[in-house]
Amino acid sequence: MGSEIRVGVLGSQGKVGKAIVDAAEAASDLTYTVGVDKGDSLEYFTDTDTAVVVDFTHPDVVMGNLEFLIRNGIHAVVGTTGFTEERLETVRGWLADNPSVGVLIAPNFAIGAVLSMRFAVQAARFYDSVEVIELHHPHKADAPSGTAYRTARLIAAARAEAGVAPSPDATTEELDGARGAQVDDVRVHSVRLAGLIAHQEVLLGTAGETLTIRHDSMDRASFAPGVLLGVREIAARPGLTVGLDDLLDL
Amino acid sequence: MGSEIRVGVLGSQGKVGKAIVDAAEAASDLTYTVGVDKGDSLEYFTDTDTAVVVDFTHPDVVMGNLEFLIRNGIHAVVGTTGFTEERLETVRGWLADNPSVGVLIAPNFAIGAVLSMRFAVQAARFYDSVEVIELHHPHKADAPSGTAYRTARLIAAARAEAGVAPSPDATTEELDGARGAQVDDVRVHSVRLAGLIAHQEVLLGTAGETLTIRHDSMDRASFAPGVLLGVREIAARPGLTVGLDDLLDL
Amino acid sequence: MGSEIRVGVLGSQGKVGKAIVDAAEAASDLTYTVGVDKGDSLEYFTDTDTAVVVDFTHPDVVMGNLEFLIRNGIHAVVGTTGFTEERLETVRGWLADNPSVGVLIAPNFAIGAVLSMRFAVQAARFYDSVEVIELHHPHKADAPSGTAYRTARLIAAARAEAGVAPSPDATTEELDGARGAQVDDVRVHSVRLAGLIAHQEVLLGTAGETLTIRHDSMDRASFAPGVLLGVREIAARPGLTVGLDDLLDL
Amino acid sequence: MGSEIRVGVLGSQGKVGKAIVDAAEAASDLTYTVGVDKGDSLEYFTDTDTAVVVDFTHPDVVMGNLEFLIRNGIHAVVGTTGFTEERLETVRGWLADNPSVGVLIAPNFAIGAVLSMRFAVQAARFYDSVEVIELHHPHKADAPSGTAYRTARLIAAARAEAGVAPSPDATTEELDGARGAQVDDVRVHSVRLAGLIAHQEVLLGTAGETLTIRHDSMDRASFAPGVLLGVREIAARPGLTVGLDDLLDL
Repeated sequence: MGSEIRVGVLGSQGKVGKAIVDAAEAASDLTYTVGVDKGDSLEYFTDTDTAVVVDFTHPDVVMGNLEFLIRNGIHAVVGTTGFTEERLETVRGWLADNPSVGVLIAPNFAIGAVLSMRFAVQAARFYDSVEVIELHHPHKADAPSGTAYRTARLIAAARAEAGVAPSPDATTEELDGARGAQVDDVRVHSVRLAGLIAHQEVLLGTAGETLTIRHDSMDRASFAPGVLLGVREIAARPGLTVGLDDLLDL
Repeated sequence: MGSEIRVGVLGSQGKVGKAIVDAAEAASDLTYTVGVDKGDSLEYFTDTDTAVVVDFTHPDVVMGNLEFLIRNGIHAVVGTTGFTEERLETVRGWLADNPSVGVLIAPNFAIGAVLSMRFAVQAARFYDSVEVIELHHPHKADAPSGTAYRTARLIAAARAEAGVAPSPDATTEELDGARGAQVDDVRVHSVRLAGLIAHQEVLLGTAGETLTIRHDSMDRASFAPGVLLGVREIAARPGLTVGLDDLLDL
Repeated sequence: MGSEIRVGVLGSQGKVGKAIVDAAEAASDLTYTVGVDKGDSLEYFTDTDTAVVVDFTHPDVVMGNLEFLIRNGIHAVVGTTGFTEERLETVRGWLADNPSVGVLIAPNFAIGAVLSMRFAVQAARFYDSVEVIELHHPHKADAPSGTAYRTARLIAAARAEAGVAPSPDATTEELDGARGAQVDDVRVHSVRLAGLIAHQEVLLGTAGETLTIRHDSMDRASFAPGVLLGVREIAARPGLTVGLDDLLDL
Repeated sequence: MGSEIRVGVLGSQGKVGKAIVDAAEAASDLTYTVGVDKGDSLEYFTDTDTAVVVDFTHPDVVMGNLEFLIRNGIHAVVGTTGFTEERLETVRGWLADNPSVGVLIAPNFAIGAVLSMRFAVQAARFYDSVEVIELHHPHKADAPSGTAYRTARLIAAARAEAGVAPSPDATTEELDGARGAQVDDVRVHSVRLAGLIAHQEVLLGTAGETLTIRHDSMDRASFAPGVLLGVREIAARPGLTVGLDDLLDL
């Protein structure tokens, strides 16, 4: 791996931040430099010669963080939420003045979530039928999950583009809700069960065969490999990258 | 196995009947005697010294068949539908006059369906949460399936009897139908997918663990082992037996 | 629930012990009294009027603990290992002198593990084929797992007793190890995968159908419901009970 | 779909051939012209103005078939086995003289098998661990299956190219065969179970998450959608195409 990458963390005392510090310290090709939290100076990063900073903070502070990092030639891997198109445009402006810097902003760092969404979309046009089942712990407030909703919409769009007919369904007698929610013609079912964490299955079927793509997220550490992938790759991708997908080179 | 059992089939030209003839001929401890279909005489069975007759015919003729069989001391294994409590009472009457004869009437001969229902009911009171997912080919008219509906009701009854609280569910924002149909407090989800046949999963969960009982029916032959089990056991169970469960000795 | 049960924990500072203290404090029908660890006096239990003590300690100290508890009329739920037949006999002796006391000693408190083993054994004789797949994190030293090994042996015994032929297998060309390990004629496959915790599937198959019993253990808390079940039931079961099975009343 | 495609079948009386004739007749954008079997003249195809011929015959006759088809400007979709590099070279020679003709030769027409292999290879480098489980009916002679073997080799190659370490495995005590067969560092497990047909799971895992890609083949019809895809696309792809992958445009 040659030289090591010097990585710092913004929001290092948060649940996610702590997990990233642990993962960075455990990786032999990375050197953890410093964590910056509320009240700390961002100059800790320049003082420690940090090359890449991971930001899991808050929408209120993330823009200030990014402006500082970009101006100081530090690459950023950002999991903080709240990026509107307007905010992205502002980031692009800062990057235009500092063309060697790379910034990755992603809503989901779980590689498996990204891959399974991608695979589902790629496979969707070859199958007569497709449905989505998502399964979560019973404390979840929304059904379906945001990921399942987005997966269904992407699948529906891919099928529409390929001119695939809607999934066949001869149901004439239905107990209310049995066939799930309909997201753009794709049925989505939400299971809530004690003992589960976060799981999703995309089921695709055609004459005589089915294909199932299942993603199981066992704990909060599941974003760590995606964040480290971003840390390793971002220096080679100047400018703004939105979503982990592009880094996966599929 | 000592002496072989001489078995005949009523409705031997039907899809199901044919499969049972095949299965009986393939079993080393059974001897297939004769098939009786529309227009044939029931006396074929007495002429051939048949000990057990399998009946997969029609509600219109099954009562006449049973009366003949019981009066002639022939045991019966019946998959024909339409048995009301009144009809069962009539059969019990005939059996009272012929106390050595055994009759098994069952709505479902798939051993796996019977076992998974039983196991789900046994496990239901030890878990905080339980949901049912049934998955079928897209030509099915009803959702949920009759088996899933019955499974959910039995589970709900077992939990009510044990004083278990309803499955926890913090859902406050639901896209219509996402959380499935509600059968007596048990959520049931119906998937319809090309390439599938008939499948069912009962998911049970509590702190840190889940238990899943899944039954996959790949083709129509799946009732055959249950029918043969009935053929082998019915001589030893005089009187009327309703449902395959009792024969399983669980 | 009427009166609450006063429960204490031996080994309350250990990983397992801590989880049990948390679970006991969260249960509305239990009152947590006191924890006893290395160096503490066992009299804390008598001083606090504790009715049931959970013991997850060490083979070196568990016998002394049990002698004290039984002599003082305190019921015990024991997950500590190392109980030989000789040790069980000694415990039975102490209980003979204190016939109102109940002691439960169990090697596995995960209800799902106990249930899935039980269901697998009940189903085993109705299927032509049965195989076991266990899947664990990659830090596990033994393959197959002790639970999978025990499950396979119990399945094999049930099939032998019922006179079921070995699972059919036409394999003539095998890459070494592909067909798994053989435990008394039952094939067992061990998967080791990062991201997994502890999982087991028993697959049963016959003509046209399969039945799958799957147990997923997501975290160490999975023994807690079984331990609490023991705490609630043990007062009603004087004498020695070995294994959680008997308490499940299946 | 504009004009319909006129399609014929070589080997139309075989099991596979019959299924393809049925599928072609059922497809609204295809017109089935004629079937050619042993003893029939290949000129049936030219007489009926057939545009594409599907060949599921025998290695002994397939080269003669292809020479005739290519010389007569007929596209071919070939599932017959036995294509060595030498044979492929001969086909390329014939195609060089008839540059508008397209020939697709594929070892596996099940779209799900092709997709799941592709997805497994794409995902392999992002995960610490990967294993393959294949599950088949008990009449299968080889273990692991050819598809599982090939999947494992492709996965291993993708990981080697990306510099990924072998899957971690702390096993020190193994009952012979428990950990499966080793195909280039990838563990492969073969389950043989009555009631199953042909199934495969690729399991990938990293810290806190797993991704599972499962393909279920329920009956022989599962190749039909892939063959029809070939029939529809081959006219637009002059020259030799080996494997269904290229047609999927992933």
